[in-house]
Amino acid sequence: MRGILLSFLAFMLLNPAAAARGTGDLGLFIERASSSVQIVETSGNTSIASVDGLGDLSHASVVYSRDARYAYVFGRDGGLSKVDILDAKLSGRTLQSGNSIGGAISQDGRLVAVSNYKPGGVKVFNADTLELVADIPATYGSNQQRSKVIGLVDAPGHKFVFSLWDADEIWVLDMSQQTRPEIQKFKAIGRNPYDALITSDGRYYIAGLFGEDGMALLDLWNLAAGVKRILPNYGRGEQKLPVYKMPHLEGWAVAGDLAFVPAVGRHEVLVINMRDWQEAGRIKVHGQPIFVMARPDGRQVWVNFALPDNDTIQVIDTQSLEIVRQLKPGKGVLHMEFEPRGEEVWLSVRDEGRVEVYDTHTFERKTSIPASKPSGIFFTARAHRIGL
Amino acid sequence: MRGILLSFLAFMLLNPAAAARGTGDLGLFIERASSSVQIVETSGNTSIASVDGLGDLSHASVVYSRDARYAYVFGRDGGLSKVDILDAKLSGRTLQSGNSIGGAISQDGRLVAVSNYKPGGVKVFNADTLELVADIPATYGSNQQRSKVIGLVDAPGHKFVFSLWDADEIWVLDMSQQTRPEIQKFKAIGRNPYDALITSDGRYYIAGLFGEDGMALLDLWNLAAGVKRILPNYGRGEQKLPVYKMPHLEGWAVAGDLAFVPAVGRHEVLVINMRDWQEAGRIKVHGQPIFVMARPDGRQVWVNFALPDNDTIQVIDTQSLEIVRQLKPGKGVLHMEFEPRGEEVWLSVRDEGRVEVYDTHTFERKTSIPASKPSGIFFTARAHRIGL
Repeated sequence: MRGILLSFLAFMLLNPAAAARGTGDLGLFIERASSSVQIVETSGNTSIASVDGLGDLSHASVVYSRDARYAYVFGRDGGLSKVDILDAKLSGRTLQSGNSIGGAISQDGRLVAVSNYKPGGVKVFNADTLELVADIPATYGSNQQRSKVIGLVDAPGHKFVFSLWDADEIWVLDMSQQTRPEIQKFKAIGRNPYDALITSDGRYYIAGLFGEDGMALLDLWNLAAGVKRILPNYGRGEQKLPVYKMPHLEGWAVAGDLAFVPAVGRHEVLVINMRDWQEAGRIKVHGQPIFVMARPDGRQVWVNFALPDNDTIQVIDTQSLEIVRQLKPGKGVLHMEFEPRGEEVWLSVRDEGRVEVYDTHTFERKTSIPASKPSGIFFTARAHRIGL
Repeated sequence: MRGILLSFLAFMLLNPAAAARGTGDLGLFIERASSSVQIVETSGNTSIASVDGLGDLSHASVVYSRDARYAYVFGRDGGLSKVDILDAKLSGRTLQSGNSIGGAISQDGRLVAVSNYKPGGVKVFNADTLELVADIPATYGSNQQRSKVIGLVDAPGHKFVFSLWDADEIWVLDMSQQTRPEIQKFKAIGRNPYDALITSDGRYYIAGLFGEDGMALLDLWNLAAGVKRILPNYGRGEQKLPVYKMPHLEGWAVAGDLAFVPAVGRHEVLVINMRDWQEAGRIKVHGQPIFVMARPDGRQVWVNFALPDNDTIQVIDTQSLEIVRQLKPGKGVLHMEFEPRGEEVWLSVRDEGRVEVYDTHTFERKTSIPASKPSGIFFTARAHRIGL
């Protein structure tokens, strides 16, 4: 009896059950230099744990399981890692390609898709086991070359949508039948789509073009209408800019009918009327905008900038279209994430080695968390959103 | 030593730690007849546990803590119950008034407010401890009478907004300073506001009027403009109807610029253009609509009906404005809740004693869960939304 009890006690001590707690206020941020993520909670704004061994996390992004327990981390080295944020451990990892860029989780949470540069295509995995479910090579042209894939998002109806950089195509992948993926291809959508986004209702997919001005718009409620070109003045600016300076489209801010878009190569935020997809104005800002993100209530838009202005944040009021605040959190403000109802925002300040939390009403700095070259910040409320 | 081990073992057996699991796919539904809630999960669509002892749950509603672990259940008898949905137990309860109707949780999750009929007013509680933080009597007029309070919602900036049935007023309560609540009152907003809603960005608060036609609109981004009257044809219909047949305003559906609203006393769903708040059309439906709810992507609107048509659901396509499907789940379809990304919808079918889950793409019934007179269904993703 005593032996059994001792064994039991030892078992309990060596295998502590994951702490029981709600996962609605959890999140993580990427620590690129240490191949790790730091798990945080937003009720007390504290760090909980770290998980490492995640490979090359430059440009890494994250989606969450529908129960908000597991983070799927998409690394640049083709690594797809499944992190248990309750237990703070790696619960699965597959090196699924040589070079990848982002991913998405299906509407029902059962499938995780990764977009790959090399070999070009999309791989779809079982979200529980990380077993391969479908391999979609991005072949095109008469020689059946393979294209790099970018701008992968989920859409309602168990769909994934993505763009082919080399092929100038947008594909809609329907995974309703896991064993019979269906692909609808839209060709000649414009030269070199470099990034894309989907509106928060999952209706409009918009790809930015590196090879020419304008953007490609696909209405997923009306696929028969095909891809349309919009915003002819949305371009690379006068000079050709290297890709790494292109703004992130996923950061598009939407407030009412207006979208706020980082201009390319200009110190401007563009205002777009989403009813007719026409430009509705330009707001002069401090530098070249990178992320232009709306507070969840749409009242404010927060903007960060490319070098040499990446120490600054500007806040735009979406009613007056004026800059109402400028902050200087420090060098290397790389990413922002709002708490789900918008009362606070988290900023990664890479070169200063910290993540900071601000009150979005008072602009007061609430706390600062030490971090090793932090970049992307991702909270679990993303689990419940379309198109992330 | 052995005694300690035995004590430890006994402790572990008697106090099993709550199961560690993500809470993003959890929810509950109200079982009015047994004063209980049934906790469910939406990944496998199963029932997990029940919690009882919640008092009079007619017309009960629920909000969630920001970590998605605790459900605050607002009962009709003035009971405010805090249910731990991980541990499946009641973790707090206060009988805070004689008769209440609904509540809300503040943007930062620290305060829970309850709107009371008797005595008329709003009480604000600490979300952790359920201790009273502020008592706001709804006094009005020269005799300082107290009004019933309805239509209580949260709004950005740690605000609560509510309407005074007897006083014809809308109040905006700012709880930024917990010890110094600030109230802004809007008077003569229209006769007898009976229910209200706030748009999902937390900007527009709209109260339905029982005493006259039209609705009262308050733009929270522009309080100086005061309350405006909109929709002059939105009224009680030709006959005066009893309050219990009034549709629920919280069920308003928004898809793009269009809002879909239950007509009062007519077999119609009204379509409202939210740009100018003008009526944009009417859709003939099967009966008197009660809840008119949009699928999260806004592509479909699901409608249930008052007696004698409460065995039926109709689904409207928001692009064609046509009814694309009619379902007959059974007698007493009282409430609907979409899974957060919209792939499935849960229906409570009270008189048949079950809750049913439907695929919103195929309209196939996925499962049926036995329930004791089920009514409201509430999923934890609500924790992350404004105005619920």
